[in-house]
Amino acid sequence: MSAVRTVVRGGLVVTAADEMHADVLVEDGRVVALAATGSDTAASWTDARVMDAHQKYVIPGGVDGHTHMEMPFGGTYSADTFETGTRAAAWGGTTTIVDFAIQSVGGSLREGLDTWYAKADGKCAVDYGFHMIVSDVNEDTLKEMDLLVSEGVTSFKQFMAYPGVFYSDDGQILRAMQRAADNGGLIMMHAENGIAIDVLVEQALARGETDPRFHGEVRKALLEAEATHRAIRLAQVAGAPLYVVHVSAREAVAELARARDEGLPVFGETCPQYLFLSTDNLAEPDFEGAKYVCSTPLRPKEHQAALWRGLRTNDLQVVSTDHCPFCFSGQKELGRGDFSKIPNGMPGVEHRMDLLHQAVVDGHISRRRWIEIACATPARMFGLYPKKGTIAPGADADIVIYDPHAEQTLSATTHHMNVDYSAYEGKRLTGRVETVLSRGEPVITEREFTGRAGHGTYTPRGTSQYLN
Amino acid sequence: MSAVRTVVRGGLVVTAADEMHADVLVEDGRVVALAATGSDTAASWTDARVMDAHQKYVIPGGVDGHTHMEMPFGGTYSADTFETGTRAAAWGGTTTIVDFAIQSVGGSLREGLDTWYAKADGKCAVDYGFHMIVSDVNEDTLKEMDLLVSEGVTSFKQFMAYPGVFYSDDGQILRAMQRAADNGGLIMMHAENGIAIDVLVEQALARGETDPRFHGEVRKALLEAEATHRAIRLAQVAGAPLYVVHVSAREAVAELARARDEGLPVFGETCPQYLFLSTDNLAEPDFEGAKYVCSTPLRPKEHQAALWRGLRTNDLQVVSTDHCPFCFSGQKELGRGDFSKIPNGMPGVEHRMDLLHQAVVDGHISRRRWIEIACATPARMFGLYPKKGTIAPGADADIVIYDPHAEQTLSATTHHMNVDYSAYEGKRLTGRVETVLSRGEPVITEREFTGRAGHGTYTPRGTSQYLN
Amino acid sequence: MSAVRTVVRGGLVVTAADEMHADVLVEDGRVVALAATGSDTAASWTDARVMDAHQKYVIPGGVDGHTHMEMPFGGTYSADTFETGTRAAAWGGTTTIVDFAIQSVGGSLREGLDTWYAKADGKCAVDYGFHMIVSDVNEDTLKEMDLLVSEGVTSFKQFMAYPGVFYSDDGQILRAMQRAADNGGLIMMHAENGIAIDVLVEQALARGETDPRFHGEVRKALLEAEATHRAIRLAQVAGAPLYVVHVSAREAVAELARARDEGLPVFGETCPQYLFLSTDNLAEPDFEGAKYVCSTPLRPKEHQAALWRGLRTNDLQVVSTDHCPFCFSGQKELGRGDFSKIPNGMPGVEHRMDLLHQAVVDGHISRRRWIEIACATPARMFGLYPKKGTIAPGADADIVIYDPHAEQTLSATTHHMNVDYSAYEGKRLTGRVETVLSRGEPVITEREFTGRAGHGTYTPRGTSQYLN
Amino acid sequence: MSAVRTVVRGGLVVTAADEMHADVLVEDGRVVALAATGSDTAASWTDARVMDAHQKYVIPGGVDGHTHMEMPFGGTYSADTFETGTRAAAWGGTTTIVDFAIQSVGGSLREGLDTWYAKADGKCAVDYGFHMIVSDVNEDTLKEMDLLVSEGVTSFKQFMAYPGVFYSDDGQILRAMQRAADNGGLIMMHAENGIAIDVLVEQALARGETDPRFHGEVRKALLEAEATHRAIRLAQVAGAPLYVVHVSAREAVAELARARDEGLPVFGETCPQYLFLSTDNLAEPDFEGAKYVCSTPLRPKEHQAALWRGLRTNDLQVVSTDHCPFCFSGQKELGRGDFSKIPNGMPGVEHRMDLLHQAVVDGHISRRRWIEIACATPARMFGLYPKKGTIAPGADADIVIYDPHAEQTLSATTHHMNVDYSAYEGKRLTGRVETVLSRGEPVITEREFTGRAGHGTYTPRGTSQYLN
Repeated sequence: MSAVRTVVRGGLVVTAADEMHADVLVEDGRVVALAATGSDTAASWTDARVMDAHQKYVIPGGVDGHTHMEMPFGGTYSADTFETGTRAAAWGGTTTIVDFAIQSVGGSLREGLDTWYAKADGKCAVDYGFHMIVSDVNEDTLKEMDLLVSEGVTSFKQFMAYPGVFYSDDGQILRAMQRAADNGGLIMMHAENGIAIDVLVEQALARGETDPRFHGEVRKALLEAEATHRAIRLAQVAGAPLYVVHVSAREAVAELARARDEGLPVFGETCPQYLFLSTDNLAEPDFEGAKYVCSTPLRPKEHQAALWRGLRTNDLQVVSTDHCPFCFSGQKELGRGDFSKIPNGMPGVEHRMDLLHQAVVDGHISRRRWIEIACATPARMFGLYPKKGTIAPGADADIVIYDPHAEQTLSATTHHMNVDYSAYEGKRLTGRVETVLSRGEPVITEREFTGRAGHGTYTPRGTSQYLN
Repeated sequence: MSAVRTVVRGGLVVTAADEMHADVLVEDGRVVALAATGSDTAASWTDARVMDAHQKYVIPGGVDGHTHMEMPFGGTYSADTFETGTRAAAWGGTTTIVDFAIQSVGGSLREGLDTWYAKADGKCAVDYGFHMIVSDVNEDTLKEMDLLVSEGVTSFKQFMAYPGVFYSDDGQILRAMQRAADNGGLIMMHAENGIAIDVLVEQALARGETDPRFHGEVRKALLEAEATHRAIRLAQVAGAPLYVVHVSAREAVAELARARDEGLPVFGETCPQYLFLSTDNLAEPDFEGAKYVCSTPLRPKEHQAALWRGLRTNDLQVVSTDHCPFCFSGQKELGRGDFSKIPNGMPGVEHRMDLLHQAVVDGHISRRRWIEIACATPARMFGLYPKKGTIAPGADADIVIYDPHAEQTLSATTHHMNVDYSAYEGKRLTGRVETVLSRGEPVITEREFTGRAGHGTYTPRGTSQYLN
Repeated sequence: MSAVRTVVRGGLVVTAADEMHADVLVEDGRVVALAATGSDTAASWTDARVMDAHQKYVIPGGVDGHTHMEMPFGGTYSADTFETGTRAAAWGGTTTIVDFAIQSVGGSLREGLDTWYAKADGKCAVDYGFHMIVSDVNEDTLKEMDLLVSEGVTSFKQFMAYPGVFYSDDGQILRAMQRAADNGGLIMMHAENGIAIDVLVEQALARGETDPRFHGEVRKALLEAEATHRAIRLAQVAGAPLYVVHVSAREAVAELARARDEGLPVFGETCPQYLFLSTDNLAEPDFEGAKYVCSTPLRPKEHQAALWRGLRTNDLQVVSTDHCPFCFSGQKELGRGDFSKIPNGMPGVEHRMDLLHQAVVDGHISRRRWIEIACATPARMFGLYPKKGTIAPGADADIVIYDPHAEQTLSATTHHMNVDYSAYEGKRLTGRVETVLSRGEPVITEREFTGRAGHGTYTPRGTSQYLN
Repeated sequence: MSAVRTVVRGGLVVTAADEMHADVLVEDGRVVALAATGSDTAASWTDARVMDAHQKYVIPGGVDGHTHMEMPFGGTYSADTFETGTRAAAWGGTTTIVDFAIQSVGGSLREGLDTWYAKADGKCAVDYGFHMIVSDVNEDTLKEMDLLVSEGVTSFKQFMAYPGVFYSDDGQILRAMQRAADNGGLIMMHAENGIAIDVLVEQALARGETDPRFHGEVRKALLEAEATHRAIRLAQVAGAPLYVVHVSAREAVAELARARDEGLPVFGETCPQYLFLSTDNLAEPDFEGAKYVCSTPLRPKEHQAALWRGLRTNDLQVVSTDHCPFCFSGQKELGRGDFSKIPNGMPGVEHRMDLLHQAVVDGHISRRRWIEIACATPARMFGLYPKKGTIAPGADADIVIYDPHAEQTLSATTHHMNVDYSAYEGKRLTGRVETVLSRGEPVITEREFTGRAGHGTYTPRGTSQYLN
């Protein structure tokens, strides 16, 4: 921990609930005080390193609840290591990620989790935690779930897609949900009817439909909505809450809204790619569409309005990235001639905070809602609050000085993720991260990386604080 | 303003977004700083009056967006003056009220507003603002609406009930909504189909159904839902936001939820009486039911679950009191033998914060949501933010030290409202207001009234800050 | 009555439930028997006039439940008299109309009804009955409703539109519905929020928006949906069934569907103009749009799919014409420079059966559903069953021999309605009426008019037979 | 075929659309003519055997679209053979059944169908057809489906329940639906999430919950609704219609209503046991609850209102019996100590027409709707129209003379099904079958069985006629 005191002076502090002109005092890695800018109290903080934030926003570091660093998929690995990925996160104002450890079929949760602990240990630029992907529900796995909750891994992802790989059947899902209802864990669901989709994939390939755009056509919105509804009902039977990851279809949003109108503890996450990209990108020629292959897939542009509306009405609570980059060259290319062999995933951990600020500029959401969906709610949802997600006395000093007026252009030539393309190449944005503190340490300083691998530490999590 | 500095030490500060163990420094009527309890910074605040809050909550003063002090109704006046009513508010931890000035039919908004300015001037124990009841929409009224918005009266109430008194027809409502869409005002709606209800009233009386319980039977839930839907569609045509007051029927909540699922800027308020009381009370014998006569009416108990659910899912955003007390003796009694002559209204300004804390204890809502629905959202909804509704550097020092463990019993013998009965006589609650600061001044000090008439000042309001 | 027997031989008899190759024997104005074509029984009918129907459909005469002959409106009269209008109906295969008698404000139902009896008496080519428009609900009116029900006028139309003319307020509507709940009458509702629409009309005219297309813009779909919902809830409060006339907006269909899902006895009628025409017509240049001015107005084309779907799912039960023709020259022209002065109404009584047969050809509905929505259901809905609406022993011999293969082109130059334009000028249709029997009398014989004014008789109606 | 002519005189003929006082002439097994009772034409039918129907209804023979005669289940066979079962059907006024041939896993459709042809051949008292249960979707099966459609087996049942027995996964369901979309077949779905239910069964048994009532508790309404929704979405993806069998849960009805509001070609069947019995029966002591074990299970009484409403609004189209009787003694008893071993199924083929007539008496449905849901719609749904389901020239003379005033008491001591208990023991009904003609042959004559095994013939079916 840093012994020095730091004061962030003169900015507009924005949290999920408040906007205030305040100076922020940091000591020992934590926020110790906020005082009105210009007040005697603020002026009295003279023995501290000063970071100037006039004309800037001072916001909590982002919490990205959905990343996949170094993840094995289809015979290759996602291109960002924990080192490169968390560095890129820092560049983008994200100071906490929650990545996914994976249970292999036949293996234990323990083995999977230990593997991921080892991957990340000593490598990260910002703090991190883990969700656990449960690929093989059985009596042993269910018992291990209890242990993991007590150890700080309090959320478990299951897949209704990817039969033969991560897929759980409805009985396995129900059992895991029942266990979560007992031990306080949260089930995260990849909600697509993978069994039906695989039929459509096979039929499309048989018809010679091999281009990346067919990835979007076979993974139908109705099959996302169907699985979303099914997961909701299974959770209702189990008496468990449910968090649906990467919601992309308006029909799926409608299912979430319906369940929430019924009072069910059901939550949804979407990602910037669904808010800003569409099947138009999947249809880019010369196999360029492969850059945009991820699951759930991008949807026609008309779906975006439903996602923005869901974010405004809190039928969607969180925006994560599902960061899972594969290089176009050598990785995405594995699927030339067969879209089903394209590694699923897109880079994004660096741009979430900026893209959502653009949404503020564009009038989709308010400033406070920006912080809520990108920082505060993911922190609460995943048991990281009040350490993460806000700027308040006692919280970790994960703080971003954000310039709302700067302009930038996204590009693979300038981004810091370890991937050879940008999904937003050439996109102009208003707003830019200037300086980032992670537990009081400047990891980005006026757009220089001043952090280091290993600064980021593993952060065990409590159970969800968003329920009630 | 107070020249002294005050520090509230050792409590758990709860806002709409955050919970933190922090000391709060107050100067010149404002919150100047928060520092982690026990930190050197907090310890350095030595020249201030100290208020101890260990084991207590430190919360923003309540904002009650719906009161009727000294309101003429049916030939009498609501029993609390601005003096007695705001003093009771202070006792209950509410530090801001927004009351309703009334335009008479045939009169101007100006005249009505000036009358209410005069009523309140120099009388109030806590701060106050005004909404404007528009009883007579015409070209002049519409122009006056613009002036009032610029003067700080930014919300306008219309009635679909009470034909011949406050009633506006759908054309008048549409015109007012159109004007509000232009000038940034917010239309607040009493949503009951008064034309149809008056038919049912006449028929009930003709059948000899004169008891107070028939008040609940004729003002049907379906007719509240109908009017709610109608107001929503008129607002949609006008392109205006809408705030529905005192929602009591589950069918009305359903209409709001439907509209919000469609993405419309539609908001709903409920009141403690709908959450805690029911038609069982209206049916109390010996005309005691008259104590509970208000409109919209109390509903059967089964409706309460929908209201709590709406508060959790944010289909309802605000809990106000609709405080409008009439003494049982001499006032409510005007309706003996004819329920339609019972003055409509109930006392409540004193108990809102406590009853909603009981809801926290009972598990209906979280602590943060308590503050959100009772302080932060009404402040934003009615343009009082960031002065009111939160504890943050720069905000008015409207602060309540709340003892979450104290027990109390509500009773007319101990309450401070100027009314001869309590709607909650004998009800036991966990939690109690200990001390209340209004702009830094202690108006309640360890359960003594230490304020004064005239401390409270008129507070002009900006346009709604809740609309994204 | 005719003493001759008639046999309609060799056609495909289509009713709401059945399709059968059968010969139909008619005696004394009634269907006496059906026998399989070619059977000995059929062959034994030798002493009868034979009408050949091979390769043709044999269908019940149409029942048009919504016409306005000689109706006063805006200082003029609809252009068809009972004589010309019912003759045109006969040409189009419609053998029963139910027209609307009108109560004047201040007058009695009796006076209105007697006026209409007199208008029609001795003039009609086909049978007719009356609904009663109730413009002035009061104690006398309510009592008269009972009398009219017993006299065979069993349905009562009210208007939520046209303030100052036909308009009833919600209290008047509720009272009439309550009365209908008691006496078995059926309330028919023109569901548009006329109070709000009149504001929009005034504003549009003030902006100089005088073209017929603005008629469509001010009478908003949302205001039809609003009124539809309101009427439904009022009916629910009254415990009465409800029949909504001329539904044109998809949002209104949605309200009906919602109510029916709740199990309410709520019914909806649409008209051919809403199924085949759109706001594109209203926007025709040179004031031609005036030809299509009716209320509810034509909607954008996208609404048509919802109407067809409603007809298929039985959320809409009836297709009537709302026949109310005004000549372009001299009548529609009253509204040049002010769309609100254009007489509201369109010709259509002649083309309903043909246009709906075209819908069969186009695959929107089945043959049986054609007969159900155009013949059987209106007969049952309005208490004319089993005399009207089917071909079965005992039913009136109102029979159409319909050539499903003939082609025709609609045009003012060839139609028989007394109006100087066709709303469907140049439209080509497959299918044509060949011969029409009205109580056994040929009124159209192989496309010659062989009927006479006065053949058609007044037909008192029972209460609705569609309510279970 | 009979050479004699028969005339059914003087009854009220009721079809799905019409009610008429008519005599019905039958020749060569078919209806040849209807003539108004008392007309000369009717009087001329003098050379025919006369059956008197004065004061009686004359209705089409019932079509029971869902029976299981001699069905293997859980190591035993349903107790009625085609001989005993169809005789009981005749007693109850049902003149056509559509039974289910079963494909064994690993076997072909052909083998299964031929087995069932053999079972029924020469045994039946009334006519019969077959649906095909598809237990094993593969390339061969899909091709066989085309053949079966052309052979007259045009509907295919799949199971989302019973994993390891009849269960199809979502991919198999999607493939079969796609095939049906092409070949005109209709997919019938047992919609329960069997995978999840099996988890709940295992857990219940592990808790010692072995009584029959737990059968109702583990097969949750939500899991019926979930599967119903899933089947609907899979059918939507496939572009196929869907028929959901034995709907019992109000939540499932809601899913069907929602889909139909969207315009999807989705249909639902319920059964008398869900309309008249409830979980109260499943909870009968001394293992008596086992008599009521079937799947989907009986639901709490509150669900019945939703089923009746669905039947009235046509969100449910058909009432079948799912007749699948197992004797209490020796068969149901297999599940003593383990409810999951109780053979699933109830007797009912004999009582459907009577129980639904009781629903007419009780005011749930109209007479015409009775015939529609029990005769006409199942005939159309399953391609048997116009031979079956109506009384019209050309139709098979399957005719029931029904006494609407007779009273009867249901009992195992008097019923004709080969099963040792009645699910309706002691239930009193108004209405009774008097005489039944099957293709003109009296099989029940004034409550004597006058038919014979082998009179009933296999009836190939066309594709569904209910799809517009």
